[in-house]
Amino acid sequence: MRRAHRIAAITKTLTERPHHVFAVGEFTDLFEVGRSTLSEDLAIIRATFEALHMGKVETISGAVGGVRYLPLLTREHILAHVEDICARLRDPQRILPGGFVYIDDLISSPALLRTVGSIFATEFGGHTPEYVVTVETAGIPVALQAAYALDIPLVVVRRQSRPTEGPVLTMNFVSGSARQIETMSLSRRALPQGSKVLLIDDFMKAGGTLRGLTDLMGEFECTVVGKGVLIETGWPGEKLIDDHLPLIYLHEVDVKEQKVVVRPADWIIS
Amino acid sequence: MRRAHRIAAITKTLTERPHHVFAVGEFTDLFEVGRSTLSEDLAIIRATFEALHMGKVETISGAVGGVRYLPLLTREHILAHVEDICARLRDPQRILPGGFVYIDDLISSPALLRTVGSIFATEFGGHTPEYVVTVETAGIPVALQAAYALDIPLVVVRRQSRPTEGPVLTMNFVSGSARQIETMSLSRRALPQGSKVLLIDDFMKAGGTLRGLTDLMGEFECTVVGKGVLIETGWPGEKLIDDHLPLIYLHEVDVKEQKVVVRPADWIIS
Repeated sequence: MRRAHRIAAITKTLTERPHHVFAVGEFTDLFEVGRSTLSEDLAIIRATFEALHMGKVETISGAVGGVRYLPLLTREHILAHVEDICARLRDPQRILPGGFVYIDDLISSPALLRTVGSIFATEFGGHTPEYVVTVETAGIPVALQAAYALDIPLVVVRRQSRPTEGPVLTMNFVSGSARQIETMSLSRRALPQGSKVLLIDDFMKAGGTLRGLTDLMGEFECTVVGKGVLIETGWPGEKLIDDHLPLIYLHEVDVKEQKVVVRPADWIIS
Repeated sequence: MRRAHRIAAITKTLTERPHHVFAVGEFTDLFEVGRSTLSEDLAIIRATFEALHMGKVETISGAVGGVRYLPLLTREHILAHVEDICARLRDPQRILPGGFVYIDDLISSPALLRTVGSIFATEFGGHTPEYVVTVETAGIPVALQAAYALDIPLVVVRRQSRPTEGPVLTMNFVSGSARQIETMSLSRRALPQGSKVLLIDDFMKAGGTLRGLTDLMGEFECTVVGKGVLIETGWPGEKLIDDHLPLIYLHEVDVKEQKVVVRPADWIIS
């Protein structure tokens, strides 16, 4: 196979499994080329991605040697993507009875979720989480794409346990907005003690769910290395957590004027 | 940019959004090359993928002209992947009290799910579904990856409706195995009338859930063009649906002998 062919195959392999380290030997064996030829191939891919802001190709030195693709987005790309989601959220047709905003179609679009996953991977990849943890149901698609972008497993905490999970740890927590006692439970075998976890959810009001998830992680003796949410609301003003990273700030839903007031989070704009 | 650089960029763009049609003009503009040069680039990517069984690059003719990547897997690849999942399911440590099998770690692995999504895209892509529909919770990751591989939205049917969904259609159905009355509900705005849908779930015993989902789709005046399940159990013998495509057949869980008897579905082996 000639260089152009090799580059097509290597690019596909690397980018369809972000963060995964591929041994250089896998490629040299497959194409029957030497390491120096392969290094030149990788240099071309790296330079192309750099020039077009398509993420980073990273070579890992060591006895075996490896290469991986990191789906890193520039701040400009993040802003553009988040602005795009905000523009779609401003559609007054999304306003539901009770002042809720319909977002189910957004958190169900694979292409949109893919980018959101890459944003979380860009911001939290450096903390080397080993698991992405979320709570059912609406957070699952967002969390899965973050897990995909980081090449780590997803762990879904349940509202109610099922017999197919084996022994579970169940915990009560107070939902921050409604001030109700709710329950979350997680299979004992879902998460090894001492793991580093990234918490991801789609929507946060007071932060009661993320507060509860953080406490649950403590019970599993796991360390929370990051907390990401797609949308944070402006109400209530007092939050139960303060070290989370929202992408979108939903200031207000004005039912009377039929307006959704929404903007990218401060850290993206600044 | 030289050919090798262009091929890296085009390959990444095409493969990270399977089934999506990209206008040829997007690439000719980006690289400032003519259509014939770009055609040669695409021919190299197509030939490489064909030689390495990496899926198909398809050119769409017409006024504008487009190109897309289809993540088609060969029967040999499908068998190898499904055999690999079966091997992991045979681990006796998965057997839970009550004869259940723990599968949460498998349906939480992004790399495994990616392949499962591509298998469903390979088998159902020809029916051109417009939505993937599943029911919460465990089916969501599998269904999302099928939606991703087909570049269509995911629709999640709820067990209980939430105020953030707007008006919903609620339906009772009989779970096939437990013979209990259960409820499913879906937002009216989640699915346009007359859509072609692909139903995906992780686990099927009698098929009551898929039967219920099919009936719910009828209420939305949608056409079910396919039904895929990751694992089908050998019990009960009588199923409530018969036109579904399972990937794995779970024959028996022998608690006494600590054995999980499992194999790829017939259509994959034959």
